[in-house]
Amino acid sequence: MPVFLDATAPEFEAAFNTLLNAKREDSPDVDSVVADIIADVRARGDQAVIDLTAKFDRITLTPQTLRITADEIAAAVAQVSPEDRDALELAAARIRAYHTRQLPDDAEWTDETGATLGWRWSAVSAAGLYVPGGLASYPSSVLMNAIPAKVAGVQRLAMVVPTPDGILNPLVLLAAHISGVDEVYRIGGAQAVAALAYGTDTIAPVDKITGPGNAFVAAAKRRVFGKVGIDMIAGPSEILIVADGDNDPDWIALDLLSQAEHDESAQSILITTDEAFGKAVADAVDKRLESLQRAHIAGPSWRDYGAIITVPDLDLAAKLTDRIAPEHLELCVADPHSLSAKITHAGAIFLGQWTPEAIGDYVGGPNHVLPTARSARFSSGLSVLDFMKRTTLAHMTPAALRAIGPAAERLARSESLEAHGLSVTARLRKLND
Amino acid sequence: MPVFLDATAPEFEAAFNTLLNAKREDSPDVDSVVADIIADVRARGDQAVIDLTAKFDRITLTPQTLRITADEIAAAVAQVSPEDRDALELAAARIRAYHTRQLPDDAEWTDETGATLGWRWSAVSAAGLYVPGGLASYPSSVLMNAIPAKVAGVQRLAMVVPTPDGILNPLVLLAAHISGVDEVYRIGGAQAVAALAYGTDTIAPVDKITGPGNAFVAAAKRRVFGKVGIDMIAGPSEILIVADGDNDPDWIALDLLSQAEHDESAQSILITTDEAFGKAVADAVDKRLESLQRAHIAGPSWRDYGAIITVPDLDLAAKLTDRIAPEHLELCVADPHSLSAKITHAGAIFLGQWTPEAIGDYVGGPNHVLPTARSARFSSGLSVLDFMKRTTLAHMTPAALRAIGPAAERLARSESLEAHGLSVTARLRKLND
Repeated sequence: MPVFLDATAPEFEAAFNTLLNAKREDSPDVDSVVADIIADVRARGDQAVIDLTAKFDRITLTPQTLRITADEIAAAVAQVSPEDRDALELAAARIRAYHTRQLPDDAEWTDETGATLGWRWSAVSAAGLYVPGGLASYPSSVLMNAIPAKVAGVQRLAMVVPTPDGILNPLVLLAAHISGVDEVYRIGGAQAVAALAYGTDTIAPVDKITGPGNAFVAAAKRRVFGKVGIDMIAGPSEILIVADGDNDPDWIALDLLSQAEHDESAQSILITTDEAFGKAVADAVDKRLESLQRAHIAGPSWRDYGAIITVPDLDLAAKLTDRIAPEHLELCVADPHSLSAKITHAGAIFLGQWTPEAIGDYVGGPNHVLPTARSARFSSGLSVLDFMKRTTLAHMTPAALRAIGPAAERLARSESLEAHGLSVTARLRKLND
Repeated sequence: MPVFLDATAPEFEAAFNTLLNAKREDSPDVDSVVADIIADVRARGDQAVIDLTAKFDRITLTPQTLRITADEIAAAVAQVSPEDRDALELAAARIRAYHTRQLPDDAEWTDETGATLGWRWSAVSAAGLYVPGGLASYPSSVLMNAIPAKVAGVQRLAMVVPTPDGILNPLVLLAAHISGVDEVYRIGGAQAVAALAYGTDTIAPVDKITGPGNAFVAAAKRRVFGKVGIDMIAGPSEILIVADGDNDPDWIALDLLSQAEHDESAQSILITTDEAFGKAVADAVDKRLESLQRAHIAGPSWRDYGAIITVPDLDLAAKLTDRIAPEHLELCVADPHSLSAKITHAGAIFLGQWTPEAIGDYVGGPNHVLPTARSARFSSGLSVLDFMKRTTLAHMTPAALRAIGPAAERLARSESLEAHGLSVTARLRKLND
């Protein structure tokens, strides 16, 4: 049973805080193992990657077979049904269209002193994409990571995907192909992250690594951060649904379950203005759990972390939402736009009852890599900007330096940074000669 | 003596790689000490902060005196000379004008299926700014961190600054006042970072922490990352100057020294097309070091990490620049704009001989918090975006769901995520009723 809370009850605040602070992730401490793996890859390069892949994925590789060839990709892709291919291409086109709008503008202007200022954006030269193997190997995640990189202008996009027992995933390879991935290597784990960050004889190093992974991959990303850029370290998935009584309980139940089925640590919360509706949703969840394929995952998630909160009005729903700062937020109310305007902290908002969160996972267009564990308070989902960086520009004229140089001299002196000041003074002296 | 390299010599590649990979930072391992301090602050709150401040800063505080009052700030600010105040206000106005242009646009559009998509930006609600005490307590850094936060719309900006032996820095407090900092606490070290991240009875927690600090502060920021957002962990400062022979060697020498004087681990590199000019710059550096106040810092930096590289042409200079990916880049050549266009990786570019890097540290307008240690390959200087986050928006109509829902159903099935698919199926069924 999920927890039922009444936001007007005296004990609510304590119970809500317990919900907010529930530690859902039990990450094993793999850091020392990962440190050894990274050191091994840095020392022995390809051979370390090959040895570790033999050990973990039970396949024997050589430097020549680390990379999945174009022919292998073509053969795997040919197995995909036309319907699946069409679905993936529709998703890719919509994701590309959305992310293309994120491309930032350069700027340059001349101010009143005659100084020209501005900035320009450029793409990361080479990026690496980690794709998990086995059950969590999602073609949609390939699209969501690779397309923003390519839209940003990343010239070399190298993907790593473990192939336990040598089995290739045709849809994952098709997604890579559609997205424009340049190189695919059949390796995974911390060794793949190390190879991307430091390079080997066969795999050139990249500048940025993104993509989800298990505890070993997350620990490896943390360790190589600084040497390369990384994306966020994602926690278990979450959904918050704010719904009035005018919804089909079964639809809302399915939306809650679509997060719960990801992971036993996932969290699904319903906030509703209608207590009877909340109970109907709880019943609908139980009914669906009787037959759901992944009930063994969704059931424990809903039982341990699910919650149904009743509120007297939507203003309070908005306030609670900001405290939760959910990864995914569905607003199934009569006027979702007004409610959306009252909410500040959420990774992605799905407006209205015709926008199930699953649309956003695949074909909506926005990215499905989103901030978890309340980090929507300070961070954003993956975007084109994650594969770009900004260089600031400044160009002084003699007149501009005369106008603002003396202030720089004075501040440098106040900070006891003499050479800073002198570098301005020497130039001003020339101007005053 | 700095290293002299000729980019056309056969041994250049090896020497250049040595230069690129020089480990300049010798960070002490303070992680376990910092972990204990954070645990103490989480457990004992204000009292832990007070005890640690007594130990490290030799001042006795109470919960009531943790915060520097408005009266204390006013009294300190009154000690600042009008000239220093004017300089700081000029700097603040120019930084504010530059960063205001960084405010990003929201977007919303309706696509061909009738789906409305978009995103909106919002500010982080509360941010914390770390300001070092003692010698490295720079008022300019307060402006560079606080103004972007306030331009972004951060409602609550809390600053921490240690005051060893109780001594307040009037210019730092004036910079905080001018920037609109809301709260100032006289605490520092890992305990201040922990207080900002987790909160105490007196200090409310923030969502994001920025600002420079020593090894303890850096380790604490790494540890609280995830609970809150942090900015980059900056390494020692760097400058790369590309200059032709048509420059005053003394100006270039001073620009090199203005990085070297920051830190014995700072790095200053000159790339020039004119070998004789390179030698003249080296002589000018030596001459300036005879009298520079901070020669005891700048001298070792220049000796251990300085370099002068001669190149046959500016195209090669651009290529080497991208490999260095410098934090600060000065282009002192006849046509700096053409050269700038050939370069991709740099934190900030200063164009032409009238733009010494020190202008950018204080009054240019762009931020002086910039990516070090080659991280300009994948990251940017501090900006308004560091204090904002983006929420994606999606609103399907029944027609839009009919158009793209089936592709989502199919992809969900291919990923064995049944509830995802069913959440779409249930709605499509209703539409087809």
